[in-house]
Amino acid sequence: MNVQAESLKLDKDLAYKLVESLTVEVGPRLAGTEADMRSVVWAERQFQQLGFDKVWREPFDMLYWERGQANLTVAAPFNQSLVVTALGGSVGTPFDGISSQVVMFNTLEELTQASTADVKDRIVFINHALEKDIRGGFYGQVVGGRARGAVEAAKLGAKAIIIRSVGSSNNRFAHTGQMRYEEGVERIPAAAISVPDAQQLSKMLAINPELTLSLQMSNNLPGTVTSHNVIAEITGSKRPDEIVLISAHLDSWDEGTGALDDGAGVGIVMATAALLKQEKPERTIRVVLFGNEEGGLIGARAYAARHHQQLAKHVFASESDFGAGRVWRFDTGMGEQALGFARELQKKLTPLGIAMGPNTASGGPDVSILKAQGVPVASLMQDGTDYFDYHHTPNDTLDKIDPTALKQNLEAWLIMTREIANSQVNLRL
Amino acid sequence: MNVQAESLKLDKDLAYKLVESLTVEVGPRLAGTEADMRSVVWAERQFQQLGFDKVWREPFDMLYWERGQANLTVAAPFNQSLVVTALGGSVGTPFDGISSQVVMFNTLEELTQASTADVKDRIVFINHALEKDIRGGFYGQVVGGRARGAVEAAKLGAKAIIIRSVGSSNNRFAHTGQMRYEEGVERIPAAAISVPDAQQLSKMLAINPELTLSLQMSNNLPGTVTSHNVIAEITGSKRPDEIVLISAHLDSWDEGTGALDDGAGVGIVMATAALLKQEKPERTIRVVLFGNEEGGLIGARAYAARHHQQLAKHVFASESDFGAGRVWRFDTGMGEQALGFARELQKKLTPLGIAMGPNTASGGPDVSILKAQGVPVASLMQDGTDYFDYHHTPNDTLDKIDPTALKQNLEAWLIMTREIANSQVNLRL
Ligand SMILES: [Zn+2]
Ligand SMILES: [Zn+2]
Ligand SMILES: [Zn+2]
Ligand SMILES: [Zn+2]
Repeated sequence: MNVQAESLKLDKDLAYKLVESLTVEVGPRLAGTEADMRSVVWAERQFQQLGFDKVWREPFDMLYWERGQANLTVAAPFNQSLVVTALGGSVGTPFDGISSQVVMFNTLEELTQASTADVKDRIVFINHALEKDIRGGFYGQVVGGRARGAVEAAKLGAKAIIIRSVGSSNNRFAHTGQMRYEEGVERIPAAAISVPDAQQLSKMLAINPELTLSLQMSNNLPGTVTSHNVIAEITGSKRPDEIVLISAHLDSWDEGTGALDDGAGVGIVMATAALLKQEKPERTIRVVLFGNEEGGLIGARAYAARHHQQLAKHVFASESDFGAGRVWRFDTGMGEQALGFARELQKKLTPLGIAMGPNTASGGPDVSILKAQGVPVASLMQDGTDYFDYHHTPNDTLDKIDPTALKQNLEAWLIMTREIANSQVNLRL
Repeated sequence: MNVQAESLKLDKDLAYKLVESLTVEVGPRLAGTEADMRSVVWAERQFQQLGFDKVWREPFDMLYWERGQANLTVAAPFNQSLVVTALGGSVGTPFDGISSQVVMFNTLEELTQASTADVKDRIVFINHALEKDIRGGFYGQVVGGRARGAVEAAKLGAKAIIIRSVGSSNNRFAHTGQMRYEEGVERIPAAAISVPDAQQLSKMLAINPELTLSLQMSNNLPGTVTSHNVIAEITGSKRPDEIVLISAHLDSWDEGTGALDDGAGVGIVMATAALLKQEKPERTIRVVLFGNEEGGLIGARAYAARHHQQLAKHVFASESDFGAGRVWRFDTGMGEQALGFARELQKKLTPLGIAMGPNTASGGPDVSILKAQGVPVASLMQDGTDYFDYHHTPNDTLDKIDPTALKQNLEAWLIMTREIANSQVNLRL
């Protein structure tokens, strides 16, 4: 893409053009890869072409993880392959794979209550379904199996763990996502199967509880590499030292092109600041495109550490990282005195169909790190009903973005950012 | 599954139970494979347990094709992988793959009108979109690129061909399906990319028309093997020599579990005959589960050749092979005098929401071979609006079948088969 600053005016398609350019020209951009580096160069070039006053990158160290092949087969008499993907951070299996009987649990909690006798030397299967919800409200209940399943299974002697994807679609895609190990607990391979495959496997187990699976994965963890946060500013015309931080994450999982997660957010916040430049906002608008959100908010933690002294001058922070659905609610996470200002702001959002929400916003995954250090936040809550249909799958591609809904997001971000950037209110109070 | 004849009564869930058993216990069953053989054994066992009077298999020779790995990558500056699958019958590439510039055409016709200068040494890309339709009516216009694209591209000197999947969904699955070569024309590799990848590729070509792709596939064509049609009969109580043939195909592509194509049809026709047994139909009901439909109606041709002398005694034939959507129309392909009978039959279908259709039915892909030899046919037309969302993809799995719609199919097949089996009408006249 080649958007020139002069041609911008009020181009409400700018967010879409940016996510299109990112997903087509860079594509998948797993943190630490060559594609991640291309996305950093892409972001710097876009910021420059959009006429930002300052553009820079901030490096940080991260553990690099590389996906290999993944195969999961059901032994005789059923002899078939299941659709599987490695969870991010997982070790591989021995070259010949791991073959073992399966033991199924409905939830992570059920696994933690099992006995070693039930689990030892088996492949654990957590078959926890994710229900749909506008806020993705059930994700938190289900994602524990992905994040902590390997540790709990290993404590009971399991050889490997597979989970039903943390996804709400019956399309046959496995959903990846980060998993964790724990010091002192054996590191066993962890993978996800698609929702139809989880249903298939549970039907097979009902027929033959002695069923054997073979899992073969060739992931690598080659060590530490450097990634980057990319940062750009529109310098404030009156109070340049006061920072209004708007953000998204630049990295994505490697199987889709990261359109919903989080190309949409990248497009929204870059476009917001670019379009506000001509209005000469009073406070500085800083756009942060965080690196390696997916690996565990690694870029956000690096940002918070590096800017520790400056956080008092961060008057506000927010992140767009929940796909491209319409904004339906304005949630805040600020001081009680600031809520009057927030309600006035929300009135300006009303024509877009955005209601006032509670004062419990996290601000977004990366921004939650700043909130924990006292930075006031808000969240323009997006309709996430379908978000977990696509989240972390090969199916997260540009065509899943509704340009009209993305435009509504941009309009909401313009209002929120403008009001805060031109105000003198202290949102901490 | 273990359905006993005595427990059958009027079990309207029987079709679903059968397709569930086939897809879970056998799974994908590409013709000529070990799984195909397991499906033959499965079918014989089910027919016997359902109390059919005769059960047998009829072998035929076929060319065996084996899918290997398939990879398609876009070269710098975009450096990304596209979702690709080999078309059935395609040769592989050299081990290191084929790397070349791409030339895009919107249709097969456009390709046939191109000059050698445009195509020579390139990878041809046919980007023909499939529109949705209740009858899948646009399939015939688009599928030519899959079937004949390799021949037309090779005539102009292309190194390989990729097509936009003949599919109507924006889910990121590539749709496989049979392609053909022609004697005397070079056999070049042929593959399909998913709809989102076709869109992605055309966006890339708009930015960089010199784009290079690398295709690597390792398919094998090891030669001739034996597959089987599986046949079972309920002997007619009054006119046992008159055959009412109802059918589906037992084989499936290898990436899904063949639930819609054609496990649903298998369940419907097996259940229809099994449930009619207790009514002692006057004519013989013969269920034929054709082998290797996907490779080009191979089992159907073998059946027609083997039973050539007996075709005059085939009073009727029909096949269920269009997924599991509700039946909405009753089309016929019979003599003019028989249409009065057909209209009476259709009246009995009216409560199921089934209208009278034209007298141009093919009877179904396999049955069209019998129709060509004078056997009267009909087609219970299914709602195929979503059929090509799933057709020939890994996503063709049991969860895509609506049990209520499948029951409606079974009810329609029971009525049609009963009326014809108990009639003395000559449908040829
Ligand atoms: Zn995200
Ligand atoms: Zn994510
Ligand atoms: Zn079929
Ligand atoms: Zn088919």
